[in-house]
Amino acid sequence: MDWKQEIAAAASRIAGHVVRTPVMMSDALWSRPVALKLEQMQHTGSFKARGAFNTLLSQPVPKAGVVAASGGNHGAAVALAATRLGNPAAIFVPEMAGAAKISLIERTGAALTVVPGEYANALAAAQEHEATTGAMQVHAYDAPATVAGQGTCFAEWDAQGLDADTVLIAVGGGGLLAGALAHWQGQRRVIAVEPETAAALHAARDAGAPVDVAVSGVAANALGARRIGRLGFDLAQAHLAESVLVPDAAITQAQVALWQAHRILVEPAGACALAALITGAYVPAPDESVAVLVCGGNIAPDPLR
Amino acid sequence: MDWKQEIAAAASRIAGHVVRTPVMMSDALWSRPVALKLEQMQHTGSFKARGAFNTLLSQPVPKAGVVAASGGNHGAAVALAATRLGNPAAIFVPEMAGAAKISLIERTGAALTVVPGEYANALAAAQEHEATTGAMQVHAYDAPATVAGQGTCFAEWDAQGLDADTVLIAVGGGGLLAGALAHWQGQRRVIAVEPETAAALHAARDAGAPVDVAVSGVAANALGARRIGRLGFDLAQAHLAESVLVPDAAITQAQVALWQAHRILVEPAGACALAALITGAYVPAPDESVAVLVCGGNIAPDPLR
Repeated sequence: MDWKQEIAAAASRIAGHVVRTPVMMSDALWSRPVALKLEQMQHTGSFKARGAFNTLLSQPVPKAGVVAASGGNHGAAVALAATRLGNPAAIFVPEMAGAAKISLIERTGAALTVVPGEYANALAAAQEHEATTGAMQVHAYDAPATVAGQGTCFAEWDAQGLDADTVLIAVGGGGLLAGALAHWQGQRRVIAVEPETAAALHAARDAGAPVDVAVSGVAANALGARRIGRLGFDLAQAHLAESVLVPDAAITQAQVALWQAHRILVEPAGACALAALITGAYVPAPDESVAVLVCGGNIAPDPLR
Repeated sequence: MDWKQEIAAAASRIAGHVVRTPVMMSDALWSRPVALKLEQMQHTGSFKARGAFNTLLSQPVPKAGVVAASGGNHGAAVALAATRLGNPAAIFVPEMAGAAKISLIERTGAALTVVPGEYANALAAAQEHEATTGAMQVHAYDAPATVAGQGTCFAEWDAQGLDADTVLIAVGGGGLLAGALAHWQGQRRVIAVEPETAAALHAARDAGAPVDVAVSGVAANALGARRIGRLGFDLAQAHLAESVLVPDAAITQAQVALWQAHRILVEPAGACALAALITGAYVPAPDESVAVLVCGGNIAPDPLR
């Protein structure tokens, strides 16, 4: 696959539907300056809107519309993209998605079903909906249109003048990471950061292939994929510089740092990449310039409720 | 005074001490695109850091250090600038500053006194400190070094490619507004936005001179100046396009809009300028492009406490 071409095509498709998210330099988060891209300011509060719009705009959508199972962020993005583009959408979320993400999906007007139990139950319900209605299942991370959509985030960052040797990215199912690796292909060092308690990529690299892992912890509803996506895994095997883990306490510490330094309020997943830097899970060389992608802002509870 | 030269000198002085705050375009806040500058991401959560650093860097600071009375944001900025530059700082705040702003000042390490009652009591205590110690009083808005410092925000925005006919700015004591008017001097239309319940500029323009007003409402601890500063008033008489008022409910609505659209969490003052646009207190012409300065993010309670 010519990823550069796929990402360029995705960027053209989704222009006008997504936010060109702001970038900044911070000297208040770590001992040296850090470049940030504030992708939590994207529509629906995460990068997922990019992949969702690209998926719906790059292929015919059946009359029955689309269906997605999601811990929250992907579901909100698919719900928004579908309703904006005039497609019906059925979104299935587990209870663990939490009230803030559930109300975010409700606000789009999409049909929402909250499924008792864990993510796997929501996925089963979504698959049943797909089978009975003919709706198109939109995968959260392991599909080329999703990866190309997420890749536009990094092409955009380059166009905004990113000046960094190394970019740290939080990993759940690997869609965002895949987008970064598909775009840069080794041109910048990409560091994958996972919670110790939701380490599907780390486990897959140890095993030499995607394997199921147990997931839990503060970022589980966003980063708690049971198994890394195949596309993300293959791109990681080809281009990833390093995979590191951070404890939940470090993620919480990074959330506090973002708020105290810059009034950037993020969900745990949104602080995960920064956590690797400020806790030393990843130690850049003395002359290595670094950047952090801030990926999600759907904190619970909603701070204005 | 050659304001352009003062602002350029201020920008050189404070470079490296303040954040070059990010800018973005939003199509999710109003019926047309709106340019935003996210100045609430500045050190201490508001533009006040610019004026504070410029004040301390542009004149000799006595051994006794500096003193400030503040509803919170100015005090935090002076506290940070002083402690970073190695000067003692005594900050006096009224109880109404609230726990979030008080803890922000405490974190800088400055000497903090919480004064019972309203702002005037804190000001009296600060003046007594000035008289007994010889510390330098740093005014929150009505001093040339403060205005030149705030003006750097708008010079920076121009350098970041601002493309807007009109810029909406929240007004308390008028320091930020003065900075904008000193920088643009009619080159862009500047709209002053005040809460109906804290309208010192509006009252002064009606009276033809600064007058005392009663202040209350959701934004009072940031925008509740009893009297508009002389510098701000004179610049407004020369260059202000329009002065408008917004009710508290509109400010709250704008806070919710910023959070829901872009995960931008601000205090009421930070949403005041946007409120004028989304509630129609200011109605741009059909072909008039608009920008909004987001000025403060010290929401209470601290969302991570």
